[in-house]
Amino acid sequence: MSLLPVEQAFARLMEMAEAATIHEHESVPLAAAQGRVLAEDMVSSLDLPPWPNSAMDGYALRLSDWAGEPLRVSQRIFAGQAPEPLEPGTCARIFTGAPVPQGADCVEMQENAEVLDDQRVRFTEALSPGQNIRPQGQETRVGDTVLAAGTRLGPVELGLSASLGLAELKVVRRVRVAVLSTGDELVEPGQPLGPGQIYNSNRVLLCSWLKRLECEVIDAGILPDDLEKTRAALGALHDVDLILSTGGVSVGEADFLGHALREEGELALWKLAIKPGKPLTFGHFRGVPVIGLPGNPASTLVTFALLARPYLLRRQGVSEVQPLQFKVPAGFVWSKPGNRREYLRGRLEQGRAVFYRNQSSGVLRSAAWADGLIEVREGSTVAEGDLLNFIPLSEVFG
Amino acid sequence: MSLLPVEQAFARLMEMAEAATIHEHESVPLAAAQGRVLAEDMVSSLDLPPWPNSAMDGYALRLSDWAGEPLRVSQRIFAGQAPEPLEPGTCARIFTGAPVPQGADCVEMQENAEVLDDQRVRFTEALSPGQNIRPQGQETRVGDTVLAAGTRLGPVELGLSASLGLAELKVVRRVRVAVLSTGDELVEPGQPLGPGQIYNSNRVLLCSWLKRLECEVIDAGILPDDLEKTRAALGALHDVDLILSTGGVSVGEADFLGHALREEGELALWKLAIKPGKPLTFGHFRGVPVIGLPGNPASTLVTFALLARPYLLRRQGVSEVQPLQFKVPAGFVWSKPGNRREYLRGRLEQGRAVFYRNQSSGVLRSAAWADGLIEVREGSTVAEGDLLNFIPLSEVFG
Repeated sequence: MSLLPVEQAFARLMEMAEAATIHEHESVPLAAAQGRVLAEDMVSSLDLPPWPNSAMDGYALRLSDWAGEPLRVSQRIFAGQAPEPLEPGTCARIFTGAPVPQGADCVEMQENAEVLDDQRVRFTEALSPGQNIRPQGQETRVGDTVLAAGTRLGPVELGLSASLGLAELKVVRRVRVAVLSTGDELVEPGQPLGPGQIYNSNRVLLCSWLKRLECEVIDAGILPDDLEKTRAALGALHDVDLILSTGGVSVGEADFLGHALREEGELALWKLAIKPGKPLTFGHFRGVPVIGLPGNPASTLVTFALLARPYLLRRQGVSEVQPLQFKVPAGFVWSKPGNRREYLRGRLEQGRAVFYRNQSSGVLRSAAWADGLIEVREGSTVAEGDLLNFIPLSEVFG
Repeated sequence: MSLLPVEQAFARLMEMAEAATIHEHESVPLAAAQGRVLAEDMVSSLDLPPWPNSAMDGYALRLSDWAGEPLRVSQRIFAGQAPEPLEPGTCARIFTGAPVPQGADCVEMQENAEVLDDQRVRFTEALSPGQNIRPQGQETRVGDTVLAAGTRLGPVELGLSASLGLAELKVVRRVRVAVLSTGDELVEPGQPLGPGQIYNSNRVLLCSWLKRLECEVIDAGILPDDLEKTRAALGALHDVDLILSTGGVSVGEADFLGHALREEGELALWKLAIKPGKPLTFGHFRGVPVIGLPGNPASTLVTFALLARPYLLRRQGVSEVQPLQFKVPAGFVWSKPGNRREYLRGRLEQGRAVFYRNQSSGVLRSAAWADGLIEVREGSTVAEGDLLNFIPLSEVFG
């Protein structure tokens, strides 16, 4: 069976996400909008700055009035004050951020001004029109689209919204994701381990990750290896946008999730050209989309980062769903080309990409050591210094 | 007055942070540990995997027993089950993740096995000892330090903790940061603007950012331009680890925060070789550290990202406080060397770093457009294609 290239799996998931875009919106205060997705274009109703203002602490004057002689100070303008028009033949003391008075066309910084005994001010350097003045609307004009619908809101976007005077934003409602794990071998941390059992790490990995993505997380626990109970557990999930499972969806005899999906929905099993993480499931259960990630923690990490995360963002209408990646020189040799695209958990050392010695998909230790994913393309070898794609983990965790 | 290089400012802030490390710890459940800092080394009390297990769905056998003939299946071992020792001269049906039975030393994947009419299994490919078996302790052994004290806990670290069976972690208590803005010109979003007034964007920028860093945020509002009220507002802040202000700390006449600090503490005014963001204040008020960031939003962003964020992390004992940076080719020419290190809000386009046309420090639009900060060193010019440092914004926002 041929392997599905990562790009094709990505494209199919994006199509399915777009067919199920969430159209419900809500208004939230700025302080609660962190990580949410803007539901409509943000259009400025202000000029920024709202009026010409001083970029310096200094003196405002009108150049055409001025023949080089010292000037009397006719007013003092602090930030937050509305100035009088400039009295002809005088200057105004002005502070950073304060409105430039009508009639003034130049601000000289205080370091280049000398206050004489009679309190008049002498300017010691050449002056030019407009200097140290930030013109009205220099940054933003009324009617500008400052942020587009589909923008994710981080600290910068929220600060920008505040600068436009917006106290509330219309955002897409949160995606509701039910997280479940499959496998009788799984035990939750804090419980004793029986023979043949291991601790469930994927639930914590995915729940904390989904919260960082501002999803609403429904923790659906561990599915028992039993068809009846699996069916009942799935049926108990109401009002969810996605069922995200790890482990167990395969053609295996012990795969009860797969059975349940085939009975009451449909199921596509993809063999991806990705390592770690070959088996990925996409299906529906009673109309609710289901993504089944592989159960080995490093596989869960890579497939969630590169496929499920973009899917969840696209469901909310986000346009830019791919993480940034950088070209970095390899600090290693890769002599055996693989048939899957490999994402090594790695770091930069002296500017070169190196990877954790043990790239087994079984635990997360490699990923905890790593700062990013190093991409080695299918069918490729790598020589020291070759440029490879590096995806910082910070790009996929927010 | 000469400018303080960024490295020196960074080194001084780190010294001050180390002198004020937070030593109070608390135990929190995994689900609440996101973004917190580990207070003590995490040492494994388990081997991972806890026993040799199968990496495939297939059949387990003992190679030395086997002469190439088909083998009878003597047991079926699902994940989560404790197997019997392997009956000599037989094989065991085994599924991914299940313990390999005592006596077996090889697992063959089911794709290379043929089940005969009499239910015996014939292996069609050459076999080698240890194949498809993950040995006990391959990833982690009892006593290994899996994460060091001072590690920040993200989804991977929490998943890893879960895999070790830990339900609670000992973390450093949250840093308590009081955020205040100074300036009579500032109005909170949602309120009408008076003449000479602008909206306060820094409060929202910093409060949402500090929450992403899992700080405890005390929103101390806007300080009025009045010495008495400034003193009272500062005096009302109890049990905070840091007072973080924006705008207003300078030698200016309207600088009441500076006055208050000089009266009841001390104050260092730094002129940093950084653009945007030259003026930075570090001081104390009645023993509480105070960092005063410049008030222009882009300056606030850059100085918080590069100086205040590492300071806050180091206060919690984090060792790695610097964001990752990447060498990227410039997609622009920079012909005029500056005397400050410049952090352009920029992006990658076709693999080259480009910056937002308007780099004014007055608003955040450049940063909302940007994916990262492009570093242009003081005294440097840049030709197209020169390699520059690029700091992804995702690296500083988490």
